[in-house]
Amino acid sequence: MSNPESHAYADAEVNDAALRYHAEPSPGKTAIQIKKPTRTQRDLSLAYTPGVAEPVRRIEQDPDAAYRYTNKGNLVAVITDGSAVLGLGKVGALAGKPVMEGKAVLFKHFADIDVFDIEVYARHPQEFIDTVRRIAPTFGGINLEDIAAPHCFEIEQILIDELDIPVFHDDQHGTAIIIAAGLLNALELQGKRLEDARIVVLGAGAAGIASIRLLITLGAHRNNIFAVDRQGVIHTGRRDLNPFKFGIAADTERRTLADAMQDADIFIGVSGPDLISPEMLAAMAPRPIVFALSNPVPEIRPELARTVRDDLIMATGRSDYPNQVNNVLGFPYIFRGALDVRASRINEDMQIAAVHALRDLTHEPVPAEVLEAYGLEQLAHGPDYIIPKPLDPRLRERVSSAVARAAVESGVARIPYQPD
Amino acid sequence: MSNPESHAYADAEVNDAALRYHAEPSPGKTAIQIKKPTRTQRDLSLAYTPGVAEPVRRIEQDPDAAYRYTNKGNLVAVITDGSAVLGLGKVGALAGKPVMEGKAVLFKHFADIDVFDIEVYARHPQEFIDTVRRIAPTFGGINLEDIAAPHCFEIEQILIDELDIPVFHDDQHGTAIIIAAGLLNALELQGKRLEDARIVVLGAGAAGIASIRLLITLGAHRNNIFAVDRQGVIHTGRRDLNPFKFGIAADTERRTLADAMQDADIFIGVSGPDLISPEMLAAMAPRPIVFALSNPVPEIRPELARTVRDDLIMATGRSDYPNQVNNVLGFPYIFRGALDVRASRINEDMQIAAVHALRDLTHEPVPAEVLEAYGLEQLAHGPDYIIPKPLDPRLRERVSSAVARAAVESGVARIPYQPD
Repeated sequence: MSNPESHAYADAEVNDAALRYHAEPSPGKTAIQIKKPTRTQRDLSLAYTPGVAEPVRRIEQDPDAAYRYTNKGNLVAVITDGSAVLGLGKVGALAGKPVMEGKAVLFKHFADIDVFDIEVYARHPQEFIDTVRRIAPTFGGINLEDIAAPHCFEIEQILIDELDIPVFHDDQHGTAIIIAAGLLNALELQGKRLEDARIVVLGAGAAGIASIRLLITLGAHRNNIFAVDRQGVIHTGRRDLNPFKFGIAADTERRTLADAMQDADIFIGVSGPDLISPEMLAAMAPRPIVFALSNPVPEIRPELARTVRDDLIMATGRSDYPNQVNNVLGFPYIFRGALDVRASRINEDMQIAAVHALRDLTHEPVPAEVLEAYGLEQLAHGPDYIIPKPLDPRLRERVSSAVARAAVESGVARIPYQPD
Repeated sequence: MSNPESHAYADAEVNDAALRYHAEPSPGKTAIQIKKPTRTQRDLSLAYTPGVAEPVRRIEQDPDAAYRYTNKGNLVAVITDGSAVLGLGKVGALAGKPVMEGKAVLFKHFADIDVFDIEVYARHPQEFIDTVRRIAPTFGGINLEDIAAPHCFEIEQILIDELDIPVFHDDQHGTAIIIAAGLLNALELQGKRLEDARIVVLGAGAAGIASIRLLITLGAHRNNIFAVDRQGVIHTGRRDLNPFKFGIAADTERRTLADAMQDADIFIGVSGPDLISPEMLAAMAPRPIVFALSNPVPEIRPELARTVRDDLIMATGRSDYPNQVNNVLGFPYIFRGALDVRASRINEDMQIAAVHALRDLTHEPVPAEVLEAYGLEQLAHGPDYIIPKPLDPRLRERVSSAVARAAVESGVARIPYQPD
């Protein structure tokens, strides 16, 4: 797989297969399904006029009745402005549609959540905010997707404050939650503590900044974290920082990525291909942890990293290496838990509950069906298994219930939690 | 059925059944269905990353590729601001949701069109317009629904002008098309011509004004049409008219509904219950046509009308009388035809094509399955069959193909018409 030519070949094959998958036998990946009978004239008179008038009146009297009589309570908007789609950048609203539909597929497949993919043509953040706010009555939750930093931060914060349903920017918090779960396991295996760890985060976009914030919440020390962007270390002396970057700036003399990597315990890359040199890796502290999450080409390739040192634990964003950081481990179940208790938001307690549920799952024996799905003989908590596998069916119950309980305990649930 | 008590009982029974229908076994009427395989890790890698990147690139290069690789081409937004829901008035965006979902059920059931129901919280028409425009990339068409007059007129016109996909306010044009189809049949049976007919339209909202406009397009004379609102006949001397009402004002000395009804050939009621007296009906011209479409209680009840005169042809909005004017005869197939040729709009030619297709269908023998669905022994073109039955399976092919062909011939289709 490390042969560039075999890579290029694989990509062309995948591209072809993906185009066919999207086009045949009919365009797109999702459709509407009618859930109720429509066989007779009577059925239709209940679905539409005159029957529909009574549910309308009930909701007019009590807005909560929308959760009894409409699809709202199980319906999430996956919504983008097309400003930062995958690694492709600002492709525009329409070109983002296959990704949003794909996310709808994952929500439905893994958590039985219905998703309307909504692609928004917005010239300014305020237009996007206004649009989401106005269509919000339709939905039980809002998943913001592929929105460029730094606007994504204010967009999310304003919508969280204004709406009474969960608003969650998955590229920030979803990614941060999976990273944190894997890191806690890796730290344990390396005999280190988050409270003492020196951390380098390369890439200060949505995922990088959200990860830093979550790690601080979990106990990491602000002064032990060096975020690095294209201009180097984000330090308090820089005058080119937006407020979001300034919020994570370190008071330090270190200036370059190589400076930052010196004696680092943890490297988290959410940046670009091959940005970490063997020398930088060699300069890290003993028993380092390297999350090289750039896709498809990591910040440093696992094969290369292993030639430099053998005491590291590594994760990537790829499914063909151990320890894949994959957002699908989080968002379906986080929303499932939030919707199950009609949470008004997805707060920090709920996010931390998801981190712990993911971490804890890797300590348990792996079911045979999971081994089979991945063609593995065995899999057990250790350097090559610090993150659950996406096709693990236990995720739904474990993560959702942890999130739902945290919502109840933190006071943002509007109905009690009732396990299936 | 004319016993008020039996009516009240029927309504309570329907209301109860409708609440159960909407709530059980799960809330709401629609859900998302995944159209593509999701069994293996490979399937998911085509639906989402890394496979999804290639469709994104294709659409970025050529927006039309969205019709090949996403659900856009078969996806319609049914979208409301909740300002005029059913006969219930301004119930608000959220309370309109059961109706929009019901419409989604009808679109899917009758024409296999996928619908996202979108409920918009908008304080002003401009906010609603902005919202629809910004989410439009998501969709292949926009069905505006239950928006109050007079704002509905400008909202629709602005969106038609700005968007390159069909925008259709069903409460206007859908209703007008079914009315016109039934009227053409009734006129033929009564031996009258639209060009000569004196027409009274009671109710000058969305449906009333759109019907008048369509009838004029079909040949009715402006000076033969008396529209009547709560203040009486809409005449050119009135100083309280908005531009939309002014556009249909008659140059006449008639002032009251009773004045207007004198010698009228056609009465179209889109207003309220029991507003037509037996005396008004008696004053109409010989062989009159009465479309009393107020629901559930018509402007004059068929039983009462029959006691006054026996030379009339009558239609209502109810399924328990002959000749039901039901929008479901139109919108699913009009959109089906428009989507099938990727029409940029639903223009007048397409609307007239739908009128003629509906009219023509009643002249053909009725299939046994239709008789069976309605428990009828027979049904043939005549005073009790001037409008097709909603469960007639021929509607889909007939109306859709007529609309699609008209789109091609009038130059608004972007791909050729290909009959199944």
